[in-house]
Amino acid sequence: MDIYAKRLANVKKLMFEENIDYLVLAPTTNMFYLTGLKTVADERLQVAVLPAEGPITLILPEMYGETAKEIRVCHQLLTWADNQNPVDLVRAAVAGREGRVAVDDRMWAGHLLQIMQAFSGFQFVAAQKIMGRARVGKDQIELSLLKLSGELADAVMKEVMQEIKVGITEKQLAAFIANRIKVLGGDDISFQPIVASGPNGALPHHHPGDRKFEQGDFIVVDFGALLQGYCSDITRTFCLGKASEESKKIYLAVQEANEAGFQAVSNGVACQNVDKAARNAIKRAGYGNYFIHRTGHGIGLDYHEEPYLVAGNLTPLRPGMVFSVEPGIYLAGRMGVRIEDIVALTEDGPRRFNNFPRELIEL
Amino acid sequence: MDIYAKRLANVKKLMFEENIDYLVLAPTTNMFYLTGLKTVADERLQVAVLPAEGPITLILPEMYGETAKEIRVCHQLLTWADNQNPVDLVRAAVAGREGRVAVDDRMWAGHLLQIMQAFSGFQFVAAQKIMGRARVGKDQIELSLLKLSGELADAVMKEVMQEIKVGITEKQLAAFIANRIKVLGGDDISFQPIVASGPNGALPHHHPGDRKFEQGDFIVVDFGALLQGYCSDITRTFCLGKASEESKKIYLAVQEANEAGFQAVSNGVACQNVDKAARNAIKRAGYGNYFIHRTGHGIGLDYHEEPYLVAGNLTPLRPGMVFSVEPGIYLAGRMGVRIEDIVALTEDGPRRFNNFPRELIEL
Repeated sequence: MDIYAKRLANVKKLMFEENIDYLVLAPTTNMFYLTGLKTVADERLQVAVLPAEGPITLILPEMYGETAKEIRVCHQLLTWADNQNPVDLVRAAVAGREGRVAVDDRMWAGHLLQIMQAFSGFQFVAAQKIMGRARVGKDQIELSLLKLSGELADAVMKEVMQEIKVGITEKQLAAFIANRIKVLGGDDISFQPIVASGPNGALPHHHPGDRKFEQGDFIVVDFGALLQGYCSDITRTFCLGKASEESKKIYLAVQEANEAGFQAVSNGVACQNVDKAARNAIKRAGYGNYFIHRTGHGIGLDYHEEPYLVAGNLTPLRPGMVFSVEPGIYLAGRMGVRIEDIVALTEDGPRRFNNFPRELIEL
Repeated sequence: MDIYAKRLANVKKLMFEENIDYLVLAPTTNMFYLTGLKTVADERLQVAVLPAEGPITLILPEMYGETAKEIRVCHQLLTWADNQNPVDLVRAAVAGREGRVAVDDRMWAGHLLQIMQAFSGFQFVAAQKIMGRARVGKDQIELSLLKLSGELADAVMKEVMQEIKVGITEKQLAAFIANRIKVLGGDDISFQPIVASGPNGALPHHHPGDRKFEQGDFIVVDFGALLQGYCSDITRTFCLGKASEESKKIYLAVQEANEAGFQAVSNGVACQNVDKAARNAIKRAGYGNYFIHRTGHGIGLDYHEEPYLVAGNLTPLRPGMVFSVEPGIYLAGRMGVRIEDIVALTEDGPRRFNNFPRELIEL
């Protein structure tokens, strides 16, 4: 059975288990996963409607007629022109007047409100429960692509280390990263690179700005590549010059937390236990209040997906799961340190997909 | 009155006119427009809740506490930790048990379903009617930024023309464009560049691939910059070598349609009439069936926003509106031509924000 037929059969099984009558997907990685079609969401409605029984219906703007030839799964295609109302096409694809619809979590809300008109009387739930479960277990090809994507990120991090100098701005380094990812063979960046220098390091999701690197800065660099649809995500924190004793202590705490998180990964271990292992290492160093986010997130076609390594998540880790381990310490107004690797749980145990050195590098 | 207070007052006026009790925004350009906060949507709920009376409440993940200092409008800030349920915070921000909620069109559907729990009993509508009306009329600062963003795109197009050679791939040119936009001062690309060569030109939204440019190709190049939040968007179609007589005829029809569309722009003219003017030029040349999309879209903080130049849109054009005029002809399996400029309707009449030559260039 080909990969798309296999995925469709699995999703239908999960729909049955979750008592879902229709799965409605937007042009997200979910649609790509299930159909092979890769388009960009915009104000024009694009949906895939999958009933519990029968083939999938793709409803696309007329101008995507040619692009639709990328679709790799058995389907019915309906197109609409710019002066037509696509909701009529969705309505025609719906049988019955009640039931449960699982809707793509990343569909635009404006489109969901349109879809709801066509499914009047139905109950709506997030498709995450189905699509998250379907996608969380990666097959061998997916694991290979994630590994390759990680190797590409490692190679770019090596260049980043050589590029960091006093006077370079965060924005310049971020542009360098995006360009090198593509030059070294990536299809794109998997998210906007984060370059957070000095006090900006205290903002976990800092937007690179015009701040110039200064002697003594800790510089958090967090980026990833997109390779044949699969994301990588790595973070390293460099010191420009000599680190103070306190900074070294902070760095070491994060490095130990990264290692403790990795060591905690094992078949059957609950996601929250990896978080706990990393968090405890930081608590022991006395910085527990400054680790202000979860320890990790899954990665695949999206750079954030299941499983999430967070307190309260009792999901057991299983072979095929791939996720980040990324503890950090953030001191507002002063600095931040984060060290992140992608880790895969394989049949042979945990494997890191990032292997750039984790020790403190003083540039 | 400062710009953010002014925008808030205008949005409240529109909420009153549309009979809206709550406006709920996601981290989109709408939130940036109204609050100055620029974060990226992800699986963590981030919302701004604006009641008809009273200040705006921002509900953000704890890790955004520092970033929230960017907020430029009077507000209340509530943060939630990774092990808390943010819906409880939204619920606490809601008074009453019925009413109308306008929700950000680009909020993730998964988040809308969460929000709906907090607004149980309320009716939901798309916020586009309010935010589209608020944002469609650009002020002087916005017009200046859009003009600058357009000039940057023109400068990159000049470099693109010099870069096109036999053997270069679509992907390589797309990466070149993205990099030059940043090197020449752009904050980012406004959307993934489209480079569609030869037969790929027939796909209006083609993803750049590994196809190498060949002698005789028509190459459609469509991209834009992001400059201080404001988008540009330009398309030119080059011929690599000598164009055939038929290709020249097709190119000329598109060029005439671009000019006819621009000439039709005037205060009070309905959006659909600009579409009609461009379309008629292509029909006259005998290619009416091959112009398979609307003539244009508005542009501002988003690269597609109101007003849309499409049959059926009776909205009158007014000074302050900025939009694309981008007719095209697409011959499946063979080639495509599109010529796109951003046009602003100013108090002094229409002005093009792109001025790279529109005549056929044979490279």
